[in-house]
Amino acid sequence: MEFSSKLLEKAVNEISQLPGIGKRTALRLVLHLLKQPKEQTGFLTQALVAMREEIKFCESCHNISDTAICEICSNTGRNHQLVCVVEDIRDVMAIENTGQFKGVYHVLGGKISPIDGVGPSQLKISTLVEKVKSGKLSEVIFALSSTMEGDTTNFYIYKQIADSGIIISTIARGIAVGDELEYADEVTLGRSILQRLPFEKAIKNN
Amino acid sequence: MEFSSKLLEKAVNEISQLPGIGKRTALRLVLHLLKQPKEQTGFLTQALVAMREEIKFCESCHNISDTAICEICSNTGRNHQLVCVVEDIRDVMAIENTGQFKGVYHVLGGKISPIDGVGPSQLKISTLVEKVKSGKLSEVIFALSSTMEGDTTNFYIYKQIADSGIIISTIARGIAVGDELEYADEVTLGRSILQRLPFEKAIKNN
Ligand SMILES: [Zn+2]
Ligand SMILES: [Zn+2]
Repeated sequence: MEFSSKLLEKAVNEISQLPGIGKRTALRLVLHLLKQPKEQTGFLTQALVAMREEIKFCESCHNISDTAICEICSNTGRNHQLVCVVEDIRDVMAIENTGQFKGVYHVLGGKISPIDGVGPSQLKISTLVEKVKSGKLSEVIFALSSTMEGDTTNFYIYKQIADSGIIISTIARGIAVGDELEYADEVTLGRSILQRLPFEKAIKNN
Repeated sequence: MEFSSKLLEKAVNEISQLPGIGKRTALRLVLHLLKQPKEQTGFLTQALVAMREEIKFCESCHNISDTAICEICSNTGRNHQLVCVVEDIRDVMAIENTGQFKGVYHVLGGKISPIDGVGPSQLKISTLVEKVKSGKLSEVIFALSSTMEGDTTNFYIYKQIADSGIIISTIARGIAVGDELEYADEVTLGRSILQRLPFEKAIKNN
């Protein structure tokens, strides 16, 4: 792609660094911004800078938060002994949306995936194990995607907490195997939380 | 969508103002930026701000340019009597890519489309008519999309320059009717420039 302007080229190149955005799409977005008042580009870029510079991760569950401890973790009406382990903040949003879960979360920040260069040390696993070892939890629910990477991650954590004496469960597989959690419909996802199984029983069913 | 952070919500809302970007995609892009070093968000936003604040439009052809007169218009090796009329800078890029055209361009900035609220006064039509009336041109080539809006725009301009005595042509319709110019393959688009027809002959063929 030959550009008539270095400023245009640079903007297109930066946007096309984003995943799933090709140069053609990036050019379409830039031309859109050029047709809009300058303020719109200002609002967009200010929101991105503020988000990237100021956003915090909850010190307890690692969910994205504007405060040191997120709203869910600081809500005394929720069951803090019951921890749902998810990959991503999108999964927290999806489960919250079902209205079925009254415990708290632990956001791993991904799943173990050697092919993508993600090992256990890049995930928030040790803080979860510490929480379990503290003796304050009654149950951990695994709510990771039912993919090979999700299963690997579940099992990696399971091995470290299996002897803790707490209940270790996994959400019911009403969700199709191989599907991403965040795309599940609310009813299925809500039911799969209510019908959770002991983890040991679930791995036997495989 | 319920967000755990106002900063996150604002960034997602601003990104999803862009055409073709839904909230789910916007969230995916924001989470990607959060996983990258802060500098990447800095580079992206600086490129967008610089582009929006500093970009110029060529005073002669209205193409995007970093200078008052663009590189094509200031190139003395090109034929300045031959003007190719296009909707958009993407069409300039597409035609330049064929290597078949040695004239200059006139970028209208769109096409007449009452349904989208675009009338002739919002397009760079009067400066084109002035160029023709100046007597310095030998030929105008219409290279707009072969849609109803493209045909309407061609004809609107044609009526104002028909008695100028210069050649008025239109690119050969090797391109499928209804297709956007920018998606045509290079060979077809290059050939359609070389095989251009007198405009009056083209409208008779319809
Ligand atoms: Zn939290
Ligand atoms: Zn120019």
